[in-house]
Amino acid sequence: MKISILTLFPEMFDGLFSHSILKQSQQKGVVSYNVVNFRHYAKDKHNRVDDYPYGGGGGMVLTPQPLFDAVEDLQGQTANKQKSRTILLCPQGEPYSQQKAEELAKEDEIILICGHYEGYDERIREHLIDEEISIGDYVLTGGEIGAMVIADSVTRLLPGSLGNDQSAVTDSHSTGLLEYPHYTRPAEYRGMAVPDILLSGHHKNIDVWRRQQSLRRTYERRPDMLESANLTDEDIAYLHSLKSKNK
Amino acid sequence: MKISILTLFPEMFDGLFSHSILKQSQQKGVVSYNVVNFRHYAKDKHNRVDDYPYGGGGGMVLTPQPLFDAVEDLQGQTANKQKSRTILLCPQGEPYSQQKAEELAKEDEIILICGHYEGYDERIREHLIDEEISIGDYVLTGGEIGAMVIADSVTRLLPGSLGNDQSAVTDSHSTGLLEYPHYTRPAEYRGMAVPDILLSGHHKNIDVWRRQQSLRRTYERRPDMLESANLTDEDIAYLHSLKSKNK
Repeated sequence: MKISILTLFPEMFDGLFSHSILKQSQQKGVVSYNVVNFRHYAKDKHNRVDDYPYGGGGGMVLTPQPLFDAVEDLQGQTANKQKSRTILLCPQGEPYSQQKAEELAKEDEIILICGHYEGYDERIREHLIDEEISIGDYVLTGGEIGAMVIADSVTRLLPGSLGNDQSAVTDSHSTGLLEYPHYTRPAEYRGMAVPDILLSGHHKNIDVWRRQQSLRRTYERRPDMLESANLTDEDIAYLHSLKSKNK
Repeated sequence: MKISILTLFPEMFDGLFSHSILKQSQQKGVVSYNVVNFRHYAKDKHNRVDDYPYGGGGGMVLTPQPLFDAVEDLQGQTANKQKSRTILLCPQGEPYSQQKAEELAKEDEIILICGHYEGYDERIREHLIDEEISIGDYVLTGGEIGAMVIADSVTRLLPGSLGNDQSAVTDSHSTGLLEYPHYTRPAEYRGMAVPDILLSGHHKNIDVWRRQQSLRRTYERRPDMLESANLTDEDIAYLHSLKSKNK
């Protein structure tokens, strides 16, 4: 898989792609990252990529030409155009989710466009891209951190990219429930003890306890997630017992 | 304001803090960033910060000692402890929002803890931190990108940090509505034209058009946001007209 990123601040990605599992994944050939400064595509003699907004108002707006040319150049480099997807990072986009990450992980190439300044010329949105994604309901200075979110979440789903493939399956948001609590040594730290059950060696009981902790935490913190989770009859009975205790 | 980040991968932040408006804000003295590798606090002779989970299962769990010591050391360096807030980045946390960014921007110091591996020992969650934040319902390899989201969104709200203070107010999620479309030169690009109204010079009409575009886009894409937006009587009338057209 190829992940291309169009940005005016390519240096922002140095830290991400030269460390941690993203670097390992690239070295193993699971993915390749391609960070491109779209200012290089500007035909303006001063390499300008932005201009004042029509109709007045503050801020600068990204002009269409450099991004149209950059995306077309990248698409031209890809053998299988059907499987290339061009995504605009912006606050108006569809909220990003684990489901979307799984969908994007099936593509041959994704092209992520990171905006800056006041926004994009609307013609970019209407005629150049396939979709718009927002990583959350908060305001950032640009699309770069959003592109990092997508690059990271998609990479870790690619076959061969994780040391411990089990992790990708049991994490919160992968199972549709929040994770159960974890404990490690020491068994007591500053008077705070690990729950007895985890020291019991009783694996079946531990599994039941973990599942219930996971259900309880999701019920208490994110009840909205329960609606789309895969629940067994036992899970539902446990949730009923929690609800009746709370009355 | 001081933003401290506890991480095992401090190099991941090099790109973020040495570019863009975050660098400018630090140079202007609006904010200072303090990235600390909490492995330095490990008392284990091999500097280990993680260990196997009690009760079995895959992955490694972050042990309490290095993070307890690191947070206490940072808090000891802060004159006004009342205004220091310690935040764990994790998928089980409260979903991050612009409102939370505004709240954090009022603190003197925030300490952001970035997890990795399978998770944190639960005693960290229960006894060390003030709150847990999740930047979205997707799985990332660690908390670093979440810490970047918080550092970026909080910094741009600090007085003196933005070149164009107007921007911070009109952005999507600041007003509670999605932004209206922007256009810049050229007036026609590859046959795609800028809407006539923006070339009319009629500022009052342009303001009305922009507000309606903003309402329409929010209505079409994120109707959930309308519930908490500040709407005028005119806005409500316009939304009614949209709804009746859709019937």
